[in-house]
Amino acid sequence: MELKGRPGVVNLLTAAVLLFGSVTFLIFALYPTSANIEYGSRQKKTFNAPRQNVWSELTEDEAADVNAFIIKQASHLNLTVHPKSAQDNFIFIVETLKPNKTDTAPYLYEDDAPKPERWAKAAVSQNFEDGPYMVYYQVGPLPITKDSQVLPLNYMFNSGRNYVRNPMYDFGAIQDFALSMAENVSDITQELLGATANREDPTDPRGLLAFPRGSRVETGGMILWMQFYRPGMGSGARTLLPQGIYAKVDATNSDINQWTVGEYYYNGVLYENEHEFRAALDDPDFKRTPANIDGSWTDTEDFGDYPDRDLPPPVSIQPYGPRYKLDRKERFVSWFGFEFYITTAQSTGVSLFDIRFKGERVVYELGLQEAMAHYAGDDPMQGGLEFMDSFFGMGKNMFELVPGYDCPAYADYLDSEWHQAYKTHNMPNSVCVFEYTADYLLSRHTAQYSVTASRNTFLTVRSVSTVGNYDYTIEYVFYMDGTLEVKVRASGFIFAAFYTANSTKSEDEYGHRIHDALSSSMHDHVLNFKADMDVAGPKNDMVRLAIEPITKNFPWDQPEQPKRNTMHLVEYPVIEETGMDWPKNSGEFYIIYSNETNAWGERKGYRITPGTGMGSTPHLTILNSTTLGDSARWAEHDIWVLKQKDTEPRSADPLNYFAPHDPIIDFTKMADHESLEYGAPDTSYDGDLVVYFNLGAHHVPHSGDIPNTLMHTSSSSIMLVPHNFADRDPSRQSVQGVRLQLSGRKAGGFAGEWFAGDESKSLARHNGDLRVRGEKKAETKAKYFGATYEKGMKVPVEAFEPDLSGYVSHSDDVGGLNFTGFGRGEALGG
Amino acid sequence: MELKGRPGVVNLLTAAVLLFGSVTFLIFALYPTSANIEYGSRQKKTFNAPRQNVWSELTEDEAADVNAFIIKQASHLNLTVHPKSAQDNFIFIVETLKPNKTDTAPYLYEDDAPKPERWAKAAVSQNFEDGPYMVYYQVGPLPITKDSQVLPLNYMFNSGRNYVRNPMYDFGAIQDFALSMAENVSDITQELLGATANREDPTDPRGLLAFPRGSRVETGGMILWMQFYRPGMGSGARTLLPQGIYAKVDATNSDINQWTVGEYYYNGVLYENEHEFRAALDDPDFKRTPANIDGSWTDTEDFGDYPDRDLPPPVSIQPYGPRYKLDRKERFVSWFGFEFYITTAQSTGVSLFDIRFKGERVVYELGLQEAMAHYAGDDPMQGGLEFMDSFFGMGKNMFELVPGYDCPAYADYLDSEWHQAYKTHNMPNSVCVFEYTADYLLSRHTAQYSVTASRNTFLTVRSVSTVGNYDYTIEYVFYMDGTLEVKVRASGFIFAAFYTANSTKSEDEYGHRIHDALSSSMHDHVLNFKADMDVAGPKNDMVRLAIEPITKNFPWDQPEQPKRNTMHLVEYPVIEETGMDWPKNSGEFYIIYSNETNAWGERKGYRITPGTGMGSTPHLTILNSTTLGDSARWAEHDIWVLKQKDTEPRSADPLNYFAPHDPIIDFTKMADHESLEYGAPDTSYDGDLVVYFNLGAHHVPHSGDIPNTLMHTSSSSIMLVPHNFADRDPSRQSVQGVRLQLSGRKAGGFAGEWFAGDESKSLARHNGDLRVRGEKKAETKAKYFGATYEKGMKVPVEAFEPDLSGYVSHSDDVGGLNFTGFGRGEALGG
Repeated sequence: MELKGRPGVVNLLTAAVLLFGSVTFLIFALYPTSANIEYGSRQKKTFNAPRQNVWSELTEDEAADVNAFIIKQASHLNLTVHPKSAQDNFIFIVETLKPNKTDTAPYLYEDDAPKPERWAKAAVSQNFEDGPYMVYYQVGPLPITKDSQVLPLNYMFNSGRNYVRNPMYDFGAIQDFALSMAENVSDITQELLGATANREDPTDPRGLLAFPRGSRVETGGMILWMQFYRPGMGSGARTLLPQGIYAKVDATNSDINQWTVGEYYYNGVLYENEHEFRAALDDPDFKRTPANIDGSWTDTEDFGDYPDRDLPPPVSIQPYGPRYKLDRKERFVSWFGFEFYITTAQSTGVSLFDIRFKGERVVYELGLQEAMAHYAGDDPMQGGLEFMDSFFGMGKNMFELVPGYDCPAYADYLDSEWHQAYKTHNMPNSVCVFEYTADYLLSRHTAQYSVTASRNTFLTVRSVSTVGNYDYTIEYVFYMDGTLEVKVRASGFIFAAFYTANSTKSEDEYGHRIHDALSSSMHDHVLNFKADMDVAGPKNDMVRLAIEPITKNFPWDQPEQPKRNTMHLVEYPVIEETGMDWPKNSGEFYIIYSNETNAWGERKGYRITPGTGMGSTPHLTILNSTTLGDSARWAEHDIWVLKQKDTEPRSADPLNYFAPHDPIIDFTKMADHESLEYGAPDTSYDGDLVVYFNLGAHHVPHSGDIPNTLMHTSSSSIMLVPHNFADRDPSRQSVQGVRLQLSGRKAGGFAGEWFAGDESKSLARHNGDLRVRGEKKAETKAKYFGATYEKGMKVPVEAFEPDLSGYVSHSDDVGGLNFTGFGRGEALGG
Repeated sequence: MELKGRPGVVNLLTAAVLLFGSVTFLIFALYPTSANIEYGSRQKKTFNAPRQNVWSELTEDEAADVNAFIIKQASHLNLTVHPKSAQDNFIFIVETLKPNKTDTAPYLYEDDAPKPERWAKAAVSQNFEDGPYMVYYQVGPLPITKDSQVLPLNYMFNSGRNYVRNPMYDFGAIQDFALSMAENVSDITQELLGATANREDPTDPRGLLAFPRGSRVETGGMILWMQFYRPGMGSGARTLLPQGIYAKVDATNSDINQWTVGEYYYNGVLYENEHEFRAALDDPDFKRTPANIDGSWTDTEDFGDYPDRDLPPPVSIQPYGPRYKLDRKERFVSWFGFEFYITTAQSTGVSLFDIRFKGERVVYELGLQEAMAHYAGDDPMQGGLEFMDSFFGMGKNMFELVPGYDCPAYADYLDSEWHQAYKTHNMPNSVCVFEYTADYLLSRHTAQYSVTASRNTFLTVRSVSTVGNYDYTIEYVFYMDGTLEVKVRASGFIFAAFYTANSTKSEDEYGHRIHDALSSSMHDHVLNFKADMDVAGPKNDMVRLAIEPITKNFPWDQPEQPKRNTMHLVEYPVIEETGMDWPKNSGEFYIIYSNETNAWGERKGYRITPGTGMGSTPHLTILNSTTLGDSARWAEHDIWVLKQKDTEPRSADPLNYFAPHDPIIDFTKMADHESLEYGAPDTSYDGDLVVYFNLGAHHVPHSGDIPNTLMHTSSSSIMLVPHNFADRDPSRQSVQGVRLQLSGRKAGGFAGEWFAGDESKSLARHNGDLRVRGEKKAETKAKYFGATYEKGMKVPVEAFEPDLSGYVSHSDDVGGLNFTGFGRGEALGG
């Protein structure tokens, strides 16, 4: 990393070592054909997706073609391939522009319909009179032919604009400015913190660094508040090491040479300028407060010898190989009736498309839209801090997963790619797919004559996005009954605040003290997801099925009970686009119903509900956040129901982060109360609705968040649960388990052994004819459904401890270094 | 089973085959001392609990002594050992009377303090002028000496009574009455249902049975509504086979010979009596509706060959043995800092006592109080149906767990015992203890030079109570950071309603149609638990830590931002006994704080929060339920905070089920707004508080609940999460995981290798001195914390597929047969 001088956009172009191909840690087993079963390479069956993955990220060749085509075609943009300064125009990002749903649906659901056209989306850095902008273009159709074009990309932005002004375009210059500021007050930092900045070596672990938190001023430009941090760029624990000296920078002028340093803030006191601050130090009554010093307390692990750690824990293994089918090329998965396509994008990470269950459509698109972290505090840094991590790249920061840890040793691992500043970045093994058997059953029943137990084995698609300090584990989980879960778990370092131990302030108003001079810094995480529901087809409507108390008189209750306090169900249709919160006392089911019915005449439905995260998912606490403006209005409710429109494919855009008060996508213009009355004569609504929902947490970290936030209590989840979707529980045909027929009198017959006919089952059980056939004395008898393990199996240690020497990533590729030029990680978190 | 004639209380005495000892399915491995490690018997170390388990259930000998002593001592009760009819007096239950907390605390927490006295609680069936009663006595001290006494047990019942009238004392007679009723209308049932009752063989699968739902009349006695069910007693699916003919019985007279059958109800129409009903059948406009017939649709399993089931799923194994220590005699467990005692009771199942973490007290008592299921419907059965399953025995119905399914093959299994009608019943392998490694990590972070991943291995204590149709899996889960979880998952058969397909009623007001003539029958599950919190000692107080929006002006925001919309923390002390609901938008943390502080001056706390069940836990929908009266007022809020009192050890008693309107324990008299202001001058509150909380679900079953409710979506959980309890995350010393030092430039040093001193860690990392010592080129290097698996390990198939031929239970011991004489299972569910 190069921070000396003014490297312009050089940071933008610092290229990762490009890594192609990947080492996967798959250990397949032979299908058990002999008594002595060895781990080994299972013969992979050829498995092909029924369609092409039309949402897949651009290949390296496609990206190169798009870059070349833009440079050639849009010569008026004056683009350069090797930008020398922030004044040069260049292509920042190229990625797939997802095809319109209306163009894609025929291809997926009809015979012989054409594939939708393939287009790219490009973000171009362009200089205008008032400074650099990011401008979006669409490029296509692909592959490039004479019919291909470069067009402004407008249709998905309800701002009417395809551009956003870039106020942080020259992050290197800002860093340089910060170093100058730090040098100017080196006497003060030496006095109060025992350290100074080191321009000669920004990675000096004894040196200070200063990082800005910007806020856009209505009249244009930015105000920056910078805080000093320890230690150098080499530590990952920087966000635990704020130093409590803050400087205000007037950055309203677009020319950085005109920026000025103004107020300083220390220990709860605001000083007009560095001179006043310096003078105050000489005052005998000047109050100092201890600083945060790095030490073993920020270590993410403890290698000490502790009791009972001398045995490894239980571990899940899969000696015979996976039971799902995976088309790696099309990234298509098939598992016990579930089928779906996987794709990735640099800003939002993994999305799934065309999710079907037992041949019926369930969800057209499921994926992250934005990941926000909004802090509060009474110091100038945390008081206005907020991140939108799609901007930093939830896909770009999907680093290599650790096999056997992030996912089981036996998981399938997929790479992901993204294209920035003419380079293709490959993130090896950054998405995993695996089955896991829960520690609890899917169902069980002890009956008089038998016990039946069915294992809960589920399928997970997982990735981890480490955006600077924070690690988001995001996963899509599939259950055998047709239930889907979307889950986020947070780990990594918190972004702590400086705690002024020697002040009259009410420090615990924004967090708890968790180290010498450290406050846990309360914040809200709100992650927005899109679920384009197509429950048994595209024609859907949503109802709130309420469970309500009622007082009623029933004829059969008379005369003893004139009135009865009881409860009943009341159905409230959702008739317009709206945001909703989870109901009090979980007293309503939010159900997406199809116009199709099941065998019993009930509408086929999927219920959307808080799942197995911690409690119910929250939304943003802050009302009308000053920091956010209109850039994340989706955070204001738990769940939204909107009309599907090709012109509204996303709830947010990464560039919203630059323009909170006039965002390129304003969600309130999407959720604008259009009718959702399907089938009503006075509405054009065709039944195709889209759900947006939020995961997240009100995070008030405490001492247990040091060194890292723990995932078991930071989980947040939504489940999509079949509600009358099928005629009966579909998992009965998929699940593996056992029926134990008990010894004893009248132990009955097995299910599956009785004769056809209405009452013959009971009769067979009654007579005991079937079970005891040929047996004198009834013994407990296990009868399995689904396969079981066979004798003579040997399992090598790799099934328990994968060989981690195959980990591909280099230190230059990951955490703390990213290539946006505006790095959350680079600047603050990593 | 004997239902012919009038067997009196014979059912009560039908004894189970007594089963002592148990087969456990433990597979221990030798501690890895050689390269070639075999599964085998790990040498069990002697491990002794620090104290005696003073809450343990009576041994068989103790129970026999108590029975004999009562019979001898309380000769005025005229008790018989072999009751011939319901008019005989006899001892129904003997069990441990848990010692007072104030008597036990010195024994646990002081040196040389005496053990608390051991006493028994006895429930005696006694006849009085107006019929039989259940009467509670306390017997002790134990062992029986000349100082032992039989005393009325009053102190824990805020009704002032130690007895409840037993309106269902002669269940056999009621069954007989039902058969007579059925015979009287056999022409009607033959006509409408194609079947009749079979007095000669109640297990006839072609025969009908009728079961009552009682409701107590204010003026005394009961009104019973009986519904016909298919098939005979031999099927476990009875609650899916209601037949839709209901008869009303006037049972207000204590003499069953005076009972009369009144109204009949069919297909939404009420008939004055059987004659009117019979006459209506001849009406050409009489509307019939199809009945429910048994078939494969009620099978709990499907043995068919289905695609992809030809491979077994992943499975968790533990080849080297457990890492917890278990004192089987005292039922004491020690695991990575957690220590606790396990006990069981016939009514409430498993409870834990004296839970400590890292040597500090956390919870004195944690256990189930009551499990209620409350139905609603517009038919006479479901319309008033409600169960309190402690009455049927959540402990009595803890049947044998299926190893490898209910719990891992490698779990430790414990037996439980209960004593009824002079017999000791042993439930083999009915509690399990095991470690499991989650499919996700406890924490992880990708930093610039390294990745650290820590596995989330947790400890579970689990039991399953199958009360008739329903299976409740109840578990206590312990995590390495000090978090505890209490979780309930439901499976088994739902209790469905008859669906009148040919009626003008609004059928979906109380459920969905899920089979030919079956409605899913909405109901609320509310399970009440006690958590006697002693967070870092007994002196605690509770606060609601609210996360609230606020608009503020900050000095550092001026002049650009006059006011800022943000959020902050506000602490509301809970100053009196009260019930609370989970807050809107999860916007408050409910924290039990100690008067002790951690290293940073923050109060040591535990947060109580909805955990990883489905969303937030609900409370009862119905307001002031007619059926419940005052018997379960704890169901009205999510969580309660009360003052700890020896006179209020429980929120409920099984006998509340008999006396809803004047229960033996009325919870409202416990939660009566006494002061909880710890340390305030005007209050006697000493800081010892108790929390009661509810788990459960608003269950609106749908087609996917047939045949069985699924556990992944029926889970409900509370977590107790450390909040500033320690100075840093304690799991760092327990957890097993890996740090991957990445290849590349400046890959830094390992944590744990740096010199002591403030900044030497960073310095060491910076210089790269430590990591690359002796190496020319940096390579990816895995460094493990905690043990790993060793090469050469062989794992036998028993680790994957336990031998189920060792399952102990006989069909006479389990589901559908219980011995209360009032069996939910026997009567209706099993």
